[in-house]
Amino acid sequence: MAKKKLETCFSPALYPQDEHMNSIVVIIDILRASSAICTAFANGASSILPVADADEAREYKSRGYLVAAERDGFVLDFADFGNSPFNFTREKVEGKTIVYSTTNGTGIINQASSAHAIAVGSFLNLGALTEWIIRQERDTLLFCAGWKNRFNIEDTVCAGAIASNLMASGKFSTICDSTLAAMDLWSLACHDLSGYIGKAAQRTRLRDKKLDDCIEFCLTIDFTDKIPVIKNGFLVENIL
Amino acid sequence: MAKKKLETCFSPALYPQDEHMNSIVVIIDILRASSAICTAFANGASSILPVADADEAREYKSRGYLVAAERDGFVLDFADFGNSPFNFTREKVEGKTIVYSTTNGTGIINQASSAHAIAVGSFLNLGALTEWIIRQERDTLLFCAGWKNRFNIEDTVCAGAIASNLMASGKFSTICDSTLAAMDLWSLACHDLSGYIGKAAQRTRLRDKKLDDCIEFCLTIDFTDKIPVIKNGFLVENIL
Repeated sequence: MAKKKLETCFSPALYPQDEHMNSIVVIIDILRASSAICTAFANGASSILPVADADEAREYKSRGYLVAAERDGFVLDFADFGNSPFNFTREKVEGKTIVYSTTNGTGIINQASSAHAIAVGSFLNLGALTEWIIRQERDTLLFCAGWKNRFNIEDTVCAGAIASNLMASGKFSTICDSTLAAMDLWSLACHDLSGYIGKAAQRTRLRDKKLDDCIEFCLTIDFTDKIPVIKNGFLVENIL
Repeated sequence: MAKKKLETCFSPALYPQDEHMNSIVVIIDILRASSAICTAFANGASSILPVADADEAREYKSRGYLVAAERDGFVLDFADFGNSPFNFTREKVEGKTIVYSTTNGTGIINQASSAHAIAVGSFLNLGALTEWIIRQERDTLLFCAGWKNRFNIEDTVCAGAIASNLMASGKFSTICDSTLAAMDLWSLACHDLSGYIGKAAQRTRLRDKKLDDCIEFCLTIDFTDKIPVIKNGFLVENIL
C-alpha cells in the first residue's frame, strides 16, 4: 500500500484551508487545552462540547451545563473552572458533558471542521494516539495551535514526537519541512523534555500568571490511552 | 544599555504587520533570491530595483533595463536571466542597475516596508551582516520568505545562524520561540550544512527542475561582506 502523507502546520494562520477533506487532523495545544481534554476523558467525562464564544459558554452555564472557560489563561467569572488539567478531576467530570471554551483550542477545532476526522493530541495520549492514527490509513496533518497565531515550541515538539512515531511505523512519508523540523526539535527535546520546554515563551507566560503548576503533568507521556475525537460537534472518546 | 529584542518570523503569513516600525528587518530567502542579491553586489552591481509584478518587470525591460525575473524557478521569456546566483556575474552586472522580480523575495520586501531598515541576509554575507546588525543597536526581526506562505527549513536554518551570532554578542535577548527553534535547528545543521539542507523540500523542487546546481554555492558562509539594504525603493550596497 502506498504510504500516507504526513504534514505539520505550526499555526492557525498557516492552516491550508480545504486541502485536508480526506485527512485526519490532530489538534495539538498542550499548554493547556489538549492536555486538559485528554485528562477529562481519562477521568471519565462522557463528552465535551467545544465552543469558541464566551457568551455561548455563558448561555450553556445558565442551562445547567458544567462549563470550562478561560481567556488568556484566566477563568471567566461564570465558569465552573478553567483550562488546567488539574480541574478535570474524576469527581467533577465523570459521566458528564462539559462545555469548553478556550483561547486557542476551540477556534482551531472549528477551523479544521472540513477534515475527514479530528482528534486531540498531547503527550498524555502519545502512544495510543499514534497507534490509532496508523490504523486509520489516511493522510494526516498535525495542527499546532501555537500562540496568537505564532509558532510555539511546546506544540511543535509534541507534533515532532507524534511524527517520529508515525514515520517509524514505515506507513507514512513526508516532504513537509515543518514535519522534518518538528522531528528534529523532538530529537533535541526528548532526553530532557521538561528542561527543553522550560525555555518556551508560554511556560514563562504561565509562570508569570502562576498557572504553571500543571506543566510537568502535561509533559507526562502515555498517561492515558483515550483518544478524543469530534463526532457531531462534540468531543467524545474514540472507540478503539 | 538594555539588550535589543530579537525575533524571527517563519512565513509571510505570520509577519506581524505594524509592529516593527523601529526595527531592522532582515529578509532571508536563500534558495535563491537573497543569495542572488548578495552575489550581485559582490560582483559590483550598483543597485537592484525589486518589483513584485511581472508586467512591471517587462515594462522596465522595454525601457532598456537589465531584468532578472522568474516565477516558480523558471525565467520569464522577456527577462535577461532568472534567479540563480550564477547569472549575476561581474561581466553582466558590474556598475548596473538590475530590475529584479521573484516569486517570493520581492513580495516580502514590500511587506516589510514600514520597518526602520530592511537588509538582505544569506549564508553568503553571514559574518558581515551580523556585525552590521549589532552596530545598529536596534530590535531586529529575521523574516524568512518560506515557500508559498509555508515554513521552510533552509531559510529557518539561516535565520538560526544569524540569531546564534547575535545572541553570542550579548547585545540581544529573545523570548521568541521561533528564534529559539531556529537556533536549535542551526545547531543540528551547522556540522554538515549541505547534508542537512539536502532534506529540505525546496532542494527537491529545485532538483526536479534541474535548478539545483547553485545550492552548494548558496551555502557558502562569508563569500562576501556586502550588505544589501533598501534605500528609496532600491537595494543598494550599505556603506559600513
